[in-house]
Amino acid sequence: MSIRIGINGYGNLGRGVELAVRENSDMELAAVFTRRDPSSVKILSQDAPVVRADELEEWKDRIDVMILCGGSAKDLPEQTPKCAGLFNCIDSFDTHARIPEHFSNVDAAARKAGKLSIISVGWDPGMFSLIRAYANAILPDGKDYTFWGKGVSQGHSDAIRRVNGVKNAKQYTIPVESALESVRRGEQPELSTRQKHTRECFVVPEEGADLAQIEKEIKEMPNYFSDYDTTVHFISEEELQEKHAGLAHGGFVFRSGHTGENREHNHILEFSLKLDSNPEFTTSVLCAYARAAYRLNQEGASGARTVLDIAPACLSPMSPEELRAHLL
Amino acid sequence: MSIRIGINGYGNLGRGVELAVRENSDMELAAVFTRRDPSSVKILSQDAPVVRADELEEWKDRIDVMILCGGSAKDLPEQTPKCAGLFNCIDSFDTHARIPEHFSNVDAAARKAGKLSIISVGWDPGMFSLIRAYANAILPDGKDYTFWGKGVSQGHSDAIRRVNGVKNAKQYTIPVESALESVRRGEQPELSTRQKHTRECFVVPEEGADLAQIEKEIKEMPNYFSDYDTTVHFISEEELQEKHAGLAHGGFVFRSGHTGENREHNHILEFSLKLDSNPEFTTSVLCAYARAAYRLNQEGASGARTVLDIAPACLSPMSPEELRAHLL
Repeated sequence: MSIRIGINGYGNLGRGVELAVRENSDMELAAVFTRRDPSSVKILSQDAPVVRADELEEWKDRIDVMILCGGSAKDLPEQTPKCAGLFNCIDSFDTHARIPEHFSNVDAAARKAGKLSIISVGWDPGMFSLIRAYANAILPDGKDYTFWGKGVSQGHSDAIRRVNGVKNAKQYTIPVESALESVRRGEQPELSTRQKHTRECFVVPEEGADLAQIEKEIKEMPNYFSDYDTTVHFISEEELQEKHAGLAHGGFVFRSGHTGENREHNHILEFSLKLDSNPEFTTSVLCAYARAAYRLNQEGASGARTVLDIAPACLSPMSPEELRAHLL
Repeated sequence: MSIRIGINGYGNLGRGVELAVRENSDMELAAVFTRRDPSSVKILSQDAPVVRADELEEWKDRIDVMILCGGSAKDLPEQTPKCAGLFNCIDSFDTHARIPEHFSNVDAAARKAGKLSIISVGWDPGMFSLIRAYANAILPDGKDYTFWGKGVSQGHSDAIRRVNGVKNAKQYTIPVESALESVRRGEQPELSTRQKHTRECFVVPEEGADLAQIEKEIKEMPNYFSDYDTTVHFISEEELQEKHAGLAHGGFVFRSGHTGENREHNHILEFSLKLDSNPEFTTSVLCAYARAAYRLNQEGASGARTVLDIAPACLSPMSPEELRAHLL
């Protein structure tokens, strides 16, 4: 029997889950839930219905794992605890500072319902967190580095769009190559914010806007840009659509640590992702953890978990014997 | 209370465990076991005894986790099942083809004793296995690549030493840079053995030996060298000791996979290790898993496990709350 997956929210992430389910022969798409008018939502799958989000509860016994595809700012803090009381759930909640609070809300709801939810799944938090946890446990005497990019930061693009005279914008976060190289050489550099990433902005101005003023406002914007070396390019809407519509992203996690009687040996652990589609990779991770949530709940487990609580074997469609024979 | 660690076998690995225990404030070294005369074994620690290996059983209640530091060829197939009936155990068994058999022997002994053993811990098998398991679960449509080196292969060095006229030798396994680059570009190349690694040999000949004959014998040796581009350098014993005594190693694991409606998006996941000391890094991994074995057994679990069965949080001295706040 297949694991019946529900998708809650059909944007880039929802569409990514739909595609990822197709890659996993032990899963099937049960339904897509939307706050929009279902008749206006066109999905790829022929055999799954699009359902109004307020009918969620009626699907309680027809869905094994609900994958939440809303945003962390407004959707998930409310949606995940609600869904966790009805289904096993996976979300990609990524507001680091609010994870403890979110975890506790989801945990309470899931425990009460006897269901299992895994929160903050994806690549950061997610895969990058795993690497940090493993690497810290293995090399206690060391230093962590995380770099993001090259990729579009939605938050920074939004911030630019709020500047007077800006019609549209995309912002790329780019790791500084010399910083990566220094970490790779084991130099354990102290890196300021400016030394780790640069920011490159592609801005479509309103007609007649004061370009110098826009550039100044962007570069001096506190938190978002003032601590970075920022480049601003003014382009047309056509060029933005043509050259900057991609969803590629990626990043690097390092741990650089010492061992030895006199700390004489250096070890560098590096993990990197180069992703053509941030949402499609993220949702591939979500689906692997959906399998784990289903299995753990079948074994009687309930409550909230994060990727740090889940054994890798739990994600795989292979049996423990196959894993030991082929991947160990 | 500290986790009391026993070391069984005091070579490079045993000494590495001793150093790693010092880095973990929740662990202490209880005793070192040796098949040699204990009075001949000098350890770094002032406060731990060196004990004859045949007195193992008397330490049953004074050791929480025994870390086996013998070799995979002859020591561990016998030692781990024996120790697993007395202690929670960690070993670094790395004969891939014999893992299923070893697992089953250790599992039976550990279950009977109510103890927990984690086998095949280290970096390959070990960290590399984890990455392969995660990456395969996340990107079902993809291809794995593992490269080793640059580092000394003990097996290949030994093989050279068996050649007539060879006094001593070290062999480096080196990944082919152009192959790494092709994988990084997402080309998913089909790579032959020869295209993945080269082999570089530093050979100390006996006086008057036929160098051309030695070189020919090495390069034509089946399994070990005939499928590789091999370079042979003849050097003096002094140069070998001076320049090739290091224990550095490392390697790369990749998964290159596709997602998208028409497989149009490529994703590259890369994990690499650059280790100044292979045994010290390996034993740092062993100690992190010793913590996990101890905890799981405290919770009532018994039998054999591999790294694939252990949740990352289990390796960390941090609490789940700390992990969620700081590493997630």
